[in-house]
Amino acid sequence: VIVTGCPRGGLRDIDALAALGVATVHEAIGRSGYLGPQIRPAYPGARLAGTAVTVLCPPGDNLMVHAAVEQCRTGDVLVITTTSPSTDAYVGELVATSLQYRGARGVVTTAGVRDVAALREMSFPAFSGAVSAQGAVKATAGAVNVPVVAGGQRICPGDAVIADDDGVVVVPRLAIPGALSSARERSDRENAARAAYCLGELSLDRNQLRKELERLGVEYAEYQPP
Amino acid sequence: VIVTGCPRGGLRDIDALAALGVATVHEAIGRSGYLGPQIRPAYPGARLAGTAVTVLCPPGDNLMVHAAVEQCRTGDVLVITTTSPSTDAYVGELVATSLQYRGARGVVTTAGVRDVAALREMSFPAFSGAVSAQGAVKATAGAVNVPVVAGGQRICPGDAVIADDDGVVVVPRLAIPGALSSARERSDRENAARAAYCLGELSLDRNQLRKELERLGVEYAEYQPP
Amino acid sequence: VIVTGCPRGGLRDIDALAALGVATVHEAIGRSGYLGPQIRPAYPGARLAGTAVTVLCPPGDNLMVHAAVEQCRTGDVLVITTTSPSTDAYVGELVATSLQYRGARGVVTTAGVRDVAALREMSFPAFSGAVSAQGAVKATAGAVNVPVVAGGQRICPGDAVIADDDGVVVVPRLAIPGALSSARERSDRENAARAAYCLGELSLDRNQLRKELERLGVEYAEYQPP
Amino acid sequence: VIVTGCPRGGLRDIDALAALGVATVHEAIGRSGYLGPQIRPAYPGARLAGTAVTVLCPPGDNLMVHAAVEQCRTGDVLVITTTSPSTDAYVGELVATSLQYRGARGVVTTAGVRDVAALREMSFPAFSGAVSAQGAVKATAGAVNVPVVAGGQRICPGDAVIADDDGVVVVPRLAIPGALSSARERSDRENAARAAYCLGELSLDRNQLRKELERLGVEYAEYQPP
Amino acid sequence: VIVTGCPRGGLRDIDALAALGVATVHEAIGRSGYLGPQIRPAYPGARLAGTAVTVLCPPGDNLMVHAAVEQCRTGDVLVITTTSPSTDAYVGELVATSLQYRGARGVVTTAGVRDVAALREMSFPAFSGAVSAQGAVKATAGAVNVPVVAGGQRICPGDAVIADDDGVVVVPRLAIPGALSSARERSDRENAARAAYCLGELSLDRNQLRKELERLGVEYAEYQPP
Amino acid sequence: VIVTGCPRGGLRDIDALAALGVATVHEAIGRSGYLGPQIRPAYPGARLAGTAVTVLCPPGDNLMVHAAVEQCRTGDVLVITTTSPSTDAYVGELVATSLQYRGARGVVTTAGVRDVAALREMSFPAFSGAVSAQGAVKATAGAVNVPVVAGGQRICPGDAVIADDDGVVVVPRLAIPGALSSARERSDRENAARAAYCLGELSLDRNQLRKELERLGVEYAEYQPP
Repeated sequence: VIVTGCPRGGLRDIDALAALGVATVHEAIGRSGYLGPQIRPAYPGARLAGTAVTVLCPPGDNLMVHAAVEQCRTGDVLVITTTSPSTDAYVGELVATSLQYRGARGVVTTAGVRDVAALREMSFPAFSGAVSAQGAVKATAGAVNVPVVAGGQRICPGDAVIADDDGVVVVPRLAIPGALSSARERSDRENAARAAYCLGELSLDRNQLRKELERLGVEYAEYQPP
Repeated sequence: VIVTGCPRGGLRDIDALAALGVATVHEAIGRSGYLGPQIRPAYPGARLAGTAVTVLCPPGDNLMVHAAVEQCRTGDVLVITTTSPSTDAYVGELVATSLQYRGARGVVTTAGVRDVAALREMSFPAFSGAVSAQGAVKATAGAVNVPVVAGGQRICPGDAVIADDDGVVVVPRLAIPGALSSARERSDRENAARAAYCLGELSLDRNQLRKELERLGVEYAEYQPP
Repeated sequence: VIVTGCPRGGLRDIDALAALGVATVHEAIGRSGYLGPQIRPAYPGARLAGTAVTVLCPPGDNLMVHAAVEQCRTGDVLVITTTSPSTDAYVGELVATSLQYRGARGVVTTAGVRDVAALREMSFPAFSGAVSAQGAVKATAGAVNVPVVAGGQRICPGDAVIADDDGVVVVPRLAIPGALSSARERSDRENAARAAYCLGELSLDRNQLRKELERLGVEYAEYQPP
Repeated sequence: VIVTGCPRGGLRDIDALAALGVATVHEAIGRSGYLGPQIRPAYPGARLAGTAVTVLCPPGDNLMVHAAVEQCRTGDVLVITTTSPSTDAYVGELVATSLQYRGARGVVTTAGVRDVAALREMSFPAFSGAVSAQGAVKATAGAVNVPVVAGGQRICPGDAVIADDDGVVVVPRLAIPGALSSARERSDRENAARAAYCLGELSLDRNQLRKELERLGVEYAEYQPP
Repeated sequence: VIVTGCPRGGLRDIDALAALGVATVHEAIGRSGYLGPQIRPAYPGARLAGTAVTVLCPPGDNLMVHAAVEQCRTGDVLVITTTSPSTDAYVGELVATSLQYRGARGVVTTAGVRDVAALREMSFPAFSGAVSAQGAVKATAGAVNVPVVAGGQRICPGDAVIADDDGVVVVPRLAIPGALSSARERSDRENAARAAYCLGELSLDRNQLRKELERLGVEYAEYQPP
Repeated sequence: VIVTGCPRGGLRDIDALAALGVATVHEAIGRSGYLGPQIRPAYPGARLAGTAVTVLCPPGDNLMVHAAVEQCRTGDVLVITTTSPSTDAYVGELVATSLQYRGARGVVTTAGVRDVAALREMSFPAFSGAVSAQGAVKATAGAVNVPVVAGGQRICPGDAVIADDDGVVVVPRLAIPGALSSARERSDRENAARAAYCLGELSLDRNQLRKELERLGVEYAEYQPP
C-alpha cells in the first residue's frame, strides 16, 4: 500500500529543533527516539532535518523507493527500512537527484547507500547502516507511508527526523511543539552549565552529585603502591 | 608458492573503467565482483585502479607480503587475504614505500593496515577490513599470485581491481574489455536519466514501474488518522 | 572507591613517545598495549597523549565520570570502561569543557561519546568504541583510579596513553623511559629502512627473508594458463 | 509509569496459533512480527506462547522487571527490552520462580538471561539475545506495559507472543483471531503440499514457477567442462 | 542460468572422507576448504556428506532454490549462497521434504533455514549462517550449478561437501581421491599420536618442538611472587 | 617465557565455589570476574572448575599450547588467549587427550576449539569464543603462565576458573577463600528468597523496592485504550 496525503510536522519547528542538535533533542524528549550508533552519516559533516516519508522494502529490493519519491515534497526526508537486514544500496545518485528536485532534504536508512562521492558533491545528506556499491532489484512490493521501525524506533509518516554527526533522532509529529520548548529549556541549562564549567565549576557541585556519591557509599582513598 | 610472469589486464581500459566509478562497473558486469561493505578506504577520498597481485597469508603473519612486493610492477594493486579472519596490519608505511617505488597503485586487504596518516600523506591508497596498529610476524609460508577469495569474490592475478568511496570491485582479466563497453553504455543511460530527473521526470515513469506496482497489487490509499 | 594522589608518568617522555606514533610505540614495547581496532577517533585527525585517570562505570551510567573529572589535572587522559558492554555516551561537550578547563588532554573509552561536532571545534580529542547521542544516567557507583581493562589491555592510573589515526596504545608507567629508548631505536631503524626502500632496496633482502622463504619450502613457479 | 489493567489476547486462540509454529504464524500475518534471528532459546527445545507484559529498562538495570512481575498473571509472557543495547541478565532463577508462581509462561528479552541450567530444570522457557552471568542493578526507573520495540517489532501489552526453535513472533492483540484463521488455512495448504512433495511433485510445478523462470529469462544449459 | 548434467564426485570416497571428520579432511587438503565458524549445524549432532548442487540467489529470494531441487539426485547436498548477506530462511520443512524425496542429503547455506524442529525429526541435516522464521520471496532470477563462493571458499557443482559438529569443508571434485589418501594417512598419524598421548608422551617430544622453542628464544623461569 | 612452579588456589575451595554456580560466584565477588557472553560451552552441559595455567599465543599459532601442556597437573584448566582476535582452533582431540592424561580439567579460550564431538565423548569440557575446524600453526613464540586478559578479565596463573552454562568466571587466587564464604552467604540468601517466591512473596516487598520506585517517581496508571 502507498498512503497519500499524510500530514507533516511543521518545518519551522523542526528546523529550530535541528539547530539545537540531535543529542539535546534526544534528551529533551525523555531520552527516546534515537536510532542508535549503527546509523552513520555517509560523508562527514552531513546534517538533515525534515518530515518523514516512510518506506518498507524487502531485502535487496528498492521498488517501493521509486514509488516513494513521487510522494515526497519540500522538506521531506525519505526513511527506508527493510523486512530483514540488508546492506544493499537503496539510494544512489539517480534517486538522490530526483529527491532533490522534489525538495526532499535527505535520506535515512538502516540499509545501504552508494555513490557517496556524488551525494557529497550534491550536498544531499544520507544516514545509513552501510555504504555499499551493491544495488537493489525492483521486483517485490512493500509499503510507503506506513509506520515503520528503524533502529529500534517507531517512525510514522510526517514525524520529524533530525540527523547530525551524533546520529539520527525521530520526534513524533504531535510531540514536535512540546519537544521544541523542552529542548530550548534544556539548551539554556546546557549553555549555563558550559559557561560555569569554563570558569572551573565542577558538575559534582553543580548537580549535587557529592551527596549521591556518599549515599551510594563511594569513598575516597589515598593511592597505595602495589 | 610464488607465481611469476602473470599476465595483467590492460591499464588503459582499467583506468577508463575506474573513471566510471565502482558502482557503475559493478552494475555493468551483472551486479557481481563487489567485495562488500566491510572493506573501506583507510582515509577519506582514497581511490585506486590497477591489476591484482594476490597474496594469501596466515592470520597475523605477513611474510608473503614481503615476497609479493618483488612481484609488483607499475599499475599493480596488492590484494592480501588471510586463511582465517585477522585484523592485524599487513601493510604500513614501510611496505607502502617499497610498493610505491615499484609503481604499485595501492593495497586492498580483508585484514588491517596501519600508519594511516603516513599513507594519506604519501597518497598511497589502501582499502581494508580494519585499521590496526598491531603488526604481523614473518614466520609462516603462504602464496603469491594464486587465485584468492576476498569479500566473497574470487580474484586472480592480473584481474582489474577498482576502488573508491563505495568500496572495491574486481573485474576478471578477460572480462575487462567487455566490462568497459557495458559500463560506458550504462553510464550513458545513467547520464540521460540524471538529466531527465533534474527536469522532474520520475523513475516510476521512465522505467515503466507503475504497471509493475499494479501487477504486484500495490494500491494507493488516502491517509486516515489513527 | 575513588583513589587520589596517584603517581603519573612523565609528560616529557610521553610526548616524545607520541611523536613517534602509536604503531612504533606498540612495536617497541614488544607488540603489546594496543587497545584494538574497535576503538576509533571520534573525528579524523584526533591525536592525544597523556597520563591515565581510570574510571570503571556500570553500563549506561556515568556518575563516576563526574567524580573523575575532579581527579584530573594537566596532562591527564580520562580512560573510561564499563562493567558490561555499552555504546552509550559517557562524555559530551559539557564534560569535555570541564576536562579541558582542568588541563586534561582527551578521552579514551570502550563505550560512546557524543557532541562530536563540538568536540572537534574544541579540539578535544576522543577515542571511543561508538558515537551515540544516547546519554547515561547518574545512579550507580563505580570506581576511579583503579586498574581497569579496556580493549584487552590492563590500564593503571598514571600509565601513558597515546592515540592517533592507528588507535590507542597504553604504556605502563614504570616502563615509559625504557619504551622511549626502544621506540627511538626502532624509529631510527625504520627511518633507515624507509630511505633504503625509497631507493629500491627490497625488504626481502634487507631483512634476510629469502632464506626464510627457502627454509619454509616456498618455491617460485612460472605462471601457467589454466 | 506502570500501566495496570491491560486487556489481553485470548489464550485459547494463542495456544492454537502456537501449535501451528512460529514460521507458519509469521507467514500467515503477512510475513511480519518476527523478532529476528538474534533472539534464541536459552535452552534447546524451549517453547512458549502467551500474552505480553512489556517492560522497558535502562541498560544493566532490571528494577522495572521486579515491578512487572506483580503485573503478571496466568498466561502472560514477560517481554523485556532496554533503552540501549545490553547483554546483562535481566532474569535468572529467582525472578523466574516468582513468575512461575504467578502463572507466567516465560520470558522474551533482547538482553540476557542467566541460571540457564535452573531455567531448564524448572521448564521455564526464555528467549534472549544473550546468556550472561552478569547481573543487573536496581537503581533507575523505566516503564511497564507501554508499547516497546524488540527485534524491530512493536509489541503492546496483551499482544500474543509465540516462540519455538525458529525464534519469536508477535501478533497484535486485535489481529489474533484473524491470524488464527489465516494460519489454519496456510497450515492446511502446507500439509497438502508436504503430502504432494512426499510423492515426488515439485514445487516448480505445484506453484507454477516454471513460467516465472521463463519470464525472468532463466535458461537451461548443459554442463561444459572448463 | 541453470546448468544440468554436472559431473559429481564419487560418493564412496566422499563417505569415506566424512568418516574421518571435517577437521581431519581440512588438514589433509592443506588447511583449505573450510567455510568458517559462522556456519553452524541447525540442530546438535547434524552431519552430512555429498556432492554439491550450487545455488546463487538474491537476498531474501529463494526462487532458484525451487529450480535447484529438480537438479538434485541421490547423494547431493544443496549449497545456497546469496549475492549480498541475508539471514532469511531459504529452506524449511517443505523444500526439505522434496529434497529428501529426491535423495538429497542435506543443505548448506550462508543464509538461514527454518522449521528446525521438523528438520531434526526428519533427520534432514542443515548447516547455516542463521536460523530464522523469516521466509523468502520467489521473484528474482539467480543461478543453479555455477561456481559460487560461500564462507570464503569457492564451491563448484559436484564438489564434495562434508559437515559435522566442527562445521563444513569442501573438497574440489577432482581432488577427492587424493584427499582421501592424504586424510587416511593423517588419520593414522593422529591415531598413533592419540595412543601415545594416552600413555603420557608429550607433543613437545613427539613433534620435536623443544628445539623449536629454543630456536625462538623461549626460556623457562621460576615463578616469582609479584 | 614459560613460568614454572606457580602456586595454585585450593581445589577443595574451588570445587565448593563451582557447586554454587558461576552466576552466584560472580555476584559474591562484587559482580566481577565474568568473561562475558561471547565465551560459550563447546557442547551443552559442559562444566569445569580448576586452577589456571595461562597461555598467550599469536593469532593462528598454538606452539605455546604444546609447551603449556607440560606445565599442567591435576586440577588445572588451560586458559588460552591471543595477541589479536582469532577464531582458529587452539585445542582439539589430541591436545585434549594429553591434557586429560595429566589431570587437567578443561580448556577456556577466547579463540576456537575443534573435534567437538570427540571432546564431548571424552567428557573434556571446553569453553571458547568459536568452534572451528581451522587449525593453528606452530611457528611463533608466546608465553606460558604470565598474567593474561581474556574476555575483559585479568587472569593470573593459579587463579580459580569456574564455568557452566552461564559462562566463565575467574576468582583471583588469594581471593578464593573469601569468595567462598561470600558465595555461601549469598547462596543462603538466594535459597531463602526462592522459598519465599515459591509461596508468592514478591521481590518488590522482600527487597523494599516499592519505596525505591516511589523515590524515582514511578507512577501507576490505569490502561487507557488508544
